[in-house]
Amino acid sequence: MLTRQAILAEAVNLSSSEGLEALSIAQIAKAVEMSKSGVVGHFGTKQSLQLAVVNRAVTVFQHEVIAPAATVPPGLGRLRALTANWVSYLDREVFPGGCFFTRAAGELDDKEGPVRAAVVTANRAWKATLRRQIMIGVAEGDLRPDTDPHQLVFELVGVMLSLNQSIQLDRDPDAVHRARRALATLLPTQPTRH
Amino acid sequence: MLTRQAILAEAVNLSSSEGLEALSIAQIAKAVEMSKSGVVGHFGTKQSLQLAVVNRAVTVFQHEVIAPAATVPPGLGRLRALTANWVSYLDREVFPGGCFFTRAAGELDDKEGPVRAAVVTANRAWKATLRRQIMIGVAEGDLRPDTDPHQLVFELVGVMLSLNQSIQLDRDPDAVHRARRALATLLPTQPTRH
Repeated sequence: MLTRQAILAEAVNLSSSEGLEALSIAQIAKAVEMSKSGVVGHFGTKQSLQLAVVNRAVTVFQHEVIAPAATVPPGLGRLRALTANWVSYLDREVFPGGCFFTRAAGELDDKEGPVRAAVVTANRAWKATLRRQIMIGVAEGDLRPDTDPHQLVFELVGVMLSLNQSIQLDRDPDAVHRARRALATLLPTQPTRH
Repeated sequence: MLTRQAILAEAVNLSSSEGLEALSIAQIAKAVEMSKSGVVGHFGTKQSLQLAVVNRAVTVFQHEVIAPAATVPPGLGRLRALTANWVSYLDREVFPGGCFFTRAAGELDDKEGPVRAAVVTANRAWKATLRRQIMIGVAEGDLRPDTDPHQLVFELVGVMLSLNQSIQLDRDPDAVHRARRALATLLPTQPTRH
């Protein structure tokens, strides 16, 4: 089990930079100082390894972004905590190549199959988590009653995708500041009550 | 020259789905019904081919998004035309794998070298074009005087990245509608004059 964890830790970091398709058994074997057959023995096929990598990335995201917000009461407060953790996750480069899921989405969106399906499922679950907090925020009067949860999630995701690109491609030192300003506009501190 | 154009047209479409790293001389040769050495003869190295592909994608983007807005007076009007064309470019899937530059950015952001530099340059030039129209819009009183051009570009890019992901990964039929709503909020029809 420890070896499996070590292989996955290496594989998830590699694929955040190189992509899931480029995951090479040889490269991982070298990084964890094992034989190629040893690595293959733990996962069987490359597809099984890719699926395990996606699951591992989901666990990391839950640990870094979702779990620390669980102590905040549901609704706008938790939504703010989730988005703040999301910014921090990208800022700290928890995955060395930037957001694992953004990289995987760009790579896999044209490729049908179980690995794409796993990324789609993870992405949907995350959006549903955000929507739930928005709906509670609306019900409690902390977000405008005409807030469209799907629309707000679309816009929050846009902020994070722009942040990820600004950090990874532009290497813009103001990226985190811009993301926080955009979030403050989307989730205003002074709620508008009607 | 015609053959070169045919090779590039094939290569730019392939790499919008498969990425620039995966561009295979063999695959392109098959698609355009040439020998591998024939393809290589046109470009020399794989890196030269990748750079030509980025330049070709820039030309397509200029033709699809920038040029049709040139007849609209500079400022907020042209900014609205540019963003509407940008939505249409993603909606019509001008590149079959979605936005060429988003795919290339995710793939190349960790890889130093001339191909990454070409993508960064294209991305910067496009953001500068948007910023210029914002500054004119502010000067003419059509955008709020406290508009931060860098911030607004960050948020506009976020809308388009979210749109691209919603089309390509989620295959969300409401994606274009959501993007237009987000743009209407960022670039309101009724200007706030102070």
